[in-house]
Amino acid sequence: MPARNLIVAQSGGPSAVINNTVRGVVETARHLDDIGTVYAGHHGIEGVLKEELIDLTAQCPEEISLLGTTPAAGAIGTCRYKLKDWQNEDFDRVMEIFKAHDIGYFVYIGGNDSMDTANKVANLARERGLDVCGLGGPKTIDNDVGDSEFQLIDHTPGYGSTARYWSNYIQQVNEENMGSSPADPVVVCQAMGRKIGYIPAAARLADPNREMPLLIYLAERKVTIEQIHEQIAATCKEHGRAIVVVSEGLNIEGLEIPEEFIVRDSFGHPTFSSSKITVAQMLTNALNDKGLPVKGNARCNVPGTDQRHSIFHASTVDLAESYRAGEKAALLAAAGEHGYMSTILRTDRENYSVRYDKAPLSEVANSERHFPSEWISEDGTDVTDEFLKYVRPLIGDGNPSVPMIDGRIRFAKLARKFADQKLDAYVPQADRQSSPS
Amino acid sequence: MPARNLIVAQSGGPSAVINNTVRGVVETARHLDDIGTVYAGHHGIEGVLKEELIDLTAQCPEEISLLGTTPAAGAIGTCRYKLKDWQNEDFDRVMEIFKAHDIGYFVYIGGNDSMDTANKVANLARERGLDVCGLGGPKTIDNDVGDSEFQLIDHTPGYGSTARYWSNYIQQVNEENMGSSPADPVVVCQAMGRKIGYIPAAARLADPNREMPLLIYLAERKVTIEQIHEQIAATCKEHGRAIVVVSEGLNIEGLEIPEEFIVRDSFGHPTFSSSKITVAQMLTNALNDKGLPVKGNARCNVPGTDQRHSIFHASTVDLAESYRAGEKAALLAAAGEHGYMSTILRTDRENYSVRYDKAPLSEVANSERHFPSEWISEDGTDVTDEFLKYVRPLIGDGNPSVPMIDGRIRFAKLARKFADQKLDAYVPQADRQSSPS
Repeated sequence: MPARNLIVAQSGGPSAVINNTVRGVVETARHLDDIGTVYAGHHGIEGVLKEELIDLTAQCPEEISLLGTTPAAGAIGTCRYKLKDWQNEDFDRVMEIFKAHDIGYFVYIGGNDSMDTANKVANLARERGLDVCGLGGPKTIDNDVGDSEFQLIDHTPGYGSTARYWSNYIQQVNEENMGSSPADPVVVCQAMGRKIGYIPAAARLADPNREMPLLIYLAERKVTIEQIHEQIAATCKEHGRAIVVVSEGLNIEGLEIPEEFIVRDSFGHPTFSSSKITVAQMLTNALNDKGLPVKGNARCNVPGTDQRHSIFHASTVDLAESYRAGEKAALLAAAGEHGYMSTILRTDRENYSVRYDKAPLSEVANSERHFPSEWISEDGTDVTDEFLKYVRPLIGDGNPSVPMIDGRIRFAKLARKFADQKLDAYVPQADRQSSPS
Repeated sequence: MPARNLIVAQSGGPSAVINNTVRGVVETARHLDDIGTVYAGHHGIEGVLKEELIDLTAQCPEEISLLGTTPAAGAIGTCRYKLKDWQNEDFDRVMEIFKAHDIGYFVYIGGNDSMDTANKVANLARERGLDVCGLGGPKTIDNDVGDSEFQLIDHTPGYGSTARYWSNYIQQVNEENMGSSPADPVVVCQAMGRKIGYIPAAARLADPNREMPLLIYLAERKVTIEQIHEQIAATCKEHGRAIVVVSEGLNIEGLEIPEEFIVRDSFGHPTFSSSKITVAQMLTNALNDKGLPVKGNARCNVPGTDQRHSIFHASTVDLAESYRAGEKAALLAAAGEHGYMSTILRTDRENYSVRYDKAPLSEVANSERHFPSEWISEDGTDVTDEFLKYVRPLIGDGNPSVPMIDGRIRFAKLARKFADQKLDAYVPQADRQSSPS
């Protein structure tokens, strides 16, 4: 059977190690006779629709190798574009692209939604008689892909590096807060993850023995402004200072978002996660207005996108696993295993070890992983040692090696040359002016 | 002459390398016969007033060595406490402490204000017949200590590491922005430095050849909301995206701070640098309200204290120089060179090299370094290559080695045992309820 080509593409928010999964696909495909050229869809499915396909096979191997330490999605791009059921022209277009470029394999890297897209696209291709093997590669810093029992996948590539970011970050914030406490005794730090608390929970890695005055609030637990003020004040009384980690999606009852900052969700409810001001800022202002039992002020830190693109904090374990997840996807592709996402399963809970496996795309697409409520402490200000046991191996032990040249980071530089256009230009459906929303 | 003891203390905001200057003092003093015990004032002059003196000479040498990679001021603390002229009881108390602990040397590490304190304290001691040698050690991430001609000091320890932070940070933000531009085409990043623009200017290090769509706004230049919106929109039109760096003290004319977020300065003026909302957030909201010529939203990142305490981004040059600045202060002390701050002077502008020297405390205390206006580009959205030539050597070439143990950073752990109390307890004047403000 002649070799057929593969499209790999990414969707959703990036991670520090997302490119290493792409690298795993490309470097593995080189050795597989069934796979010909590996193309990247520039900016995910949007690049497929627009026929913007980057030839990854033709890139200098050193640059592909450097994808391993090139964070975020700048190399091939990501998107927030979702193929919805009504977008039948988009689906037709994808089929045309597959035919025109002799695509036999489609690997979509992302979260639940992306697995849904991968599943739909691949199934449609089969319905239309195209022999396309549709696969997924797992990725999300939120660790919310899969099931809450960790049976479909133990954790997602990307999460370990963001967890390590928070471990390193809070250790350094503690040095800062210890040193500067006479002026700034309280620091409020806001973590990503709107609904699911794996990211703020990882702040506990900074202080597994609970020696710091650290309070962690996940969006999963409701809290009132009176409670949170009381708990922070009590910590200040005991330690003279407090480090407070809040989820970006934490809704604090009684903490009013000023009218001009409100953006309402689809139900008309104002929520912090979509407002024009951060919950960390609002909480900090409220603490300073209400007063603290120590002199000085509360201040806030919102690390923002750094927590998902800092290669300096990347976990060596996450780097290795993200590569293997890409490798596994390529191997599944070559074996014709249609309709699966490559997965990581923990095989030993005492002495961390994993194996790479597969889970049906349809199951992943319809699953949602929550943060187990038994991993949140009684008073809602901490996570448990069981969670620590789960997360600790994911951050690894050492620092990644980040290549530098002339004082700057040496990122991968891919030739941004697209494969020859074989079809007419196309505007994705949702980008057209008259499209329904 | 019998050896006399030394007090070293820190004041103001910390840096990634501040502890390395302390280490330089301690490790050098070990070899100097004239210097006996080295004490640290816990939380700067406040610790001196309260007789909270940490014995640094008695610490395990390995822990002192680890100060080199322990950022921020957690090890011995810093303060915002300033000795004002009316605080005569405080001055008296410092003299008592000097006598009680046989202090012959006082080294204050900080910025202009701290040099003023060091100068006053040491001069008073001499007036009172105490033979105390008063010295300063330079430190500030803002690089605003010294004169604008760089003759008193070329740059301050701490600045190189924060500059490197911004170089690394913006390189990674660019990867993120390139990858995520279909959803988030504009990212506004806020840098520290309320009035003086050395920190936001350092973002240019990320892109010396001007390949990124990067706009840099220093507080030194006035800008209106119309101008900044227009410039960002033009960049989006050309590149499809924009990375915008703003100083935390940037005042954007026409960008109104909502009434409930205003904190007025001593002149009754509302300023962003003291408001309860960041200029980055307000600008981001304004950009989204006004609209951009590309689809998607503006988002904002405010790295906060990370830029002054991330040891992972510390400059190897800054680490080496901060140590030598401490070493120089100890050598000046032992030589009886009263009334000086140790300095770094650039001896070769083409092939970077420096020598360590001294500047009179009184001159440093009364100086203020500005960002040369000729280093800001015509249109106020960039800095010049002359600035790059100045700053480039300060960030070094490689990554610092950060020791890790069991997944966590191995910071110095100093025994927090204070020297025996010899005087009655004392409440610093400004901390008393009835003190004038």
